[in-house]
Amino acid sequence: MSLVKKPVNGMKDILPAEMQIRDYVQGVIKDTYREYGFAQIETPCMESIANLSNKQGGENEKLIFKVMKRGEKLNLETAKTQADLVDFGMRYDLTVPLARFYANHANDLPSPFKALQMGNVWRADRPQRGRYRQFMQCDIDILGEPSILAEIELILATTAALGRIGFQKFEVKINERRILKAMAKCSGFAEEEMDSVFIILDKIDKIGIEGVAEELKDAGFAQANVDQYMALFEGVRQAKDGLSYLEKELDGFLEEEVVVNLKEIMDCVNGCKAAEFELAFDPSLVRGMSYYTGTIFEIVMPEFGASCGGGGRYDKMIGNFTGKDVPACGFSIGFERIILLLMENGFQIPRQPEKTAYLVEKGYPAKKLKEVIAKAQKAREDGQQVLVVRMNKNKKFQKEQLAKEGYEKFEEFFRRGKEE
Amino acid sequence: MSLVKKPVNGMKDILPAEMQIRDYVQGVIKDTYREYGFAQIETPCMESIANLSNKQGGENEKLIFKVMKRGEKLNLETAKTQADLVDFGMRYDLTVPLARFYANHANDLPSPFKALQMGNVWRADRPQRGRYRQFMQCDIDILGEPSILAEIELILATTAALGRIGFQKFEVKINERRILKAMAKCSGFAEEEMDSVFIILDKIDKIGIEGVAEELKDAGFAQANVDQYMALFEGVRQAKDGLSYLEKELDGFLEEEVVVNLKEIMDCVNGCKAAEFELAFDPSLVRGMSYYTGTIFEIVMPEFGASCGGGGRYDKMIGNFTGKDVPACGFSIGFERIILLLMENGFQIPRQPEKTAYLVEKGYPAKKLKEVIAKAQKAREDGQQVLVVRMNKNKKFQKEQLAKEGYEKFEEFFRRGKEE
Repeated sequence: MSLVKKPVNGMKDILPAEMQIRDYVQGVIKDTYREYGFAQIETPCMESIANLSNKQGGENEKLIFKVMKRGEKLNLETAKTQADLVDFGMRYDLTVPLARFYANHANDLPSPFKALQMGNVWRADRPQRGRYRQFMQCDIDILGEPSILAEIELILATTAALGRIGFQKFEVKINERRILKAMAKCSGFAEEEMDSVFIILDKIDKIGIEGVAEELKDAGFAQANVDQYMALFEGVRQAKDGLSYLEKELDGFLEEEVVVNLKEIMDCVNGCKAAEFELAFDPSLVRGMSYYTGTIFEIVMPEFGASCGGGGRYDKMIGNFTGKDVPACGFSIGFERIILLLMENGFQIPRQPEKTAYLVEKGYPAKKLKEVIAKAQKAREDGQQVLVVRMNKNKKFQKEQLAKEGYEKFEEFFRRGKEE
Repeated sequence: MSLVKKPVNGMKDILPAEMQIRDYVQGVIKDTYREYGFAQIETPCMESIANLSNKQGGENEKLIFKVMKRGEKLNLETAKTQADLVDFGMRYDLTVPLARFYANHANDLPSPFKALQMGNVWRADRPQRGRYRQFMQCDIDILGEPSILAEIELILATTAALGRIGFQKFEVKINERRILKAMAKCSGFAEEEMDSVFIILDKIDKIGIEGVAEELKDAGFAQANVDQYMALFEGVRQAKDGLSYLEKELDGFLEEEVVVNLKEIMDCVNGCKAAEFELAFDPSLVRGMSYYTGTIFEIVMPEFGASCGGGGRYDKMIGNFTGKDVPACGFSIGFERIILLLMENGFQIPRQPEKTAYLVEKGYPAKKLKEVIAKAQKAREDGQQVLVVRMNKNKKFQKEQLAKEGYEKFEEFFRRGKEE
């Protein structure tokens, strides 16, 4: 037989133990986000290939799983390029589809609109340990809200959800694209150099600030600019209040509202937060996506090196669909990393129902089976979980297997009554 | 701008009102199935194209969305056929992936294994009203259980879930592939004619039994066979107990256990059912999929002409992956049809939390905003749903929009205190 038992390369099957945790966590996240007034929506997993390939997705656009045209539209003979063969692609994130969704339905939605999305996305990355080519994303976005109310609510909701799952003492880093730019500009970097500067700065978690300085010099940037840039970061590090320090240093390079807004966001979040975490200004936070226009933020867990979620403001994306900009801000939980962390730490789901397995011997008479089922039905009506299965020859092994699935109580039903 | 606002052809965006109902129904189904001991699993949305194209999927195999190879594996120049360009396909059901999953993980799973799957599937059908090319399926399957215990538990669990959603007075039709075959054989049809006979019989809901007779004759089947076939159906119709009638008439064509099993399933389900429905033997029930080997069943809602779910026994499919047959039986709820029915009937979700919207005027001072947010946080901790949004200029319209989303209470916060 030529059938393949393994999942396709880079994707994974999810077994019951992990699935239970995923489902529980999804439930907590959904319930929390609903309390904050986010309304769940869904878009198809496929988008028109044009929507996915217009440069908003950055590097992700190189990783699209492309879907072949069908029927008469597909002509292998005349096709010259990939584009002739493909019409749809698998979405690589939930943000581009949300922008399309909002452009399509804005008239039927309240404004501002608070959206919740949980769904799979696909990226044809090189398969590697712990990273999969299909994975769940879990995003909230507020569309049509230009003020800091969006940032405050997004950070409070996301951290409340993480807190309810059981995470604490994590950190939310916050920065502003305009501070990022002002620091670079004030250091003498030209506008067109900035993307390259930020790509190097983004490696700071791995190579440290000295490593960044090194790489910037190696990349050929002027020594004076690099020195000035480093002095700014060092200034923030030493200042009691990094934001006020930058406000002064970047005078003339930065709109006044930027620092005011960040301070107000931090003050309000710290005063109202429902979970135990630190919200900290970090001028080195970059966030890769080029669509961000304002605030950016990222979750860092002490147990986990890399980011466990993040987001920011992207006020220009919806305009790509409608021709009219709509302020937008979103926060995405790194769902797969959260699950990985919980699994590694032996997470136990609270408040599980009692689980009982009825083992029924082979050849058990149908009349009496009805009584067994009736008993199970009664327990189920009371909210208990009852598994009715046939008893295997190796009953001991069967019970061990079931115990792994959380079955603690067993009842046995023998063909001739009592244990033989 | 060349960006497309609509979802891709044949797929749909799901707005908050429908999403709430979908989420509620999914929750009820999941909770019910868990009480019956089904464990949720998940497989990737893509499968190797070989697994999807080995004739088990019947007509669905013509409807596969195919995923193009990537990177070096893709060579347009040398590709002669579609097969050279494609490695993955979108799954068209959850049964083939489940068989692969079980073949891959049987050693890590209890036996018998009761699986629950809820997930999207894709079929490149011609788009038409009410039928979409991406849709949710909701399946339970019992793998490794050869006895009627599987059928009984599947029917009880599925009908219990439907009952809890609020459906009643529906019908579950039941039949057996071996009865279907025995009736055809006993009427004189040859083995190789049967598939064509069943395809015509399957139209009975639309054309009636006379229509079936007509079409069989038009298709060139012998008059005597058609007459004999019709006489059997008429016999069942007139008999007090259709199954006993067939048991006698099909003597020599049918294993004894078939009727005994069906009777026992019906007796046990009728005695233990947790919802108000009729389980009825229907000798004309065909179920399209060729992989069924034994019992087959189907849900019919009085409000809805077509089937709202179905399933059956498929004891040979897993053997295609492992070389060793594993008894298997499954039941799938027609999730999209259920949702459609509920939406059309103005379904209201029970026990919704109180929803309050705080409208905050533009320019509301940050210091005071903090107090508003703190108030919202407190209500959320008590499980209330609180939306904090900026107040629009057209406040009346905004409130109307929010009322549509279920917000009943409003609080307004003005820049200068009290209403101006």
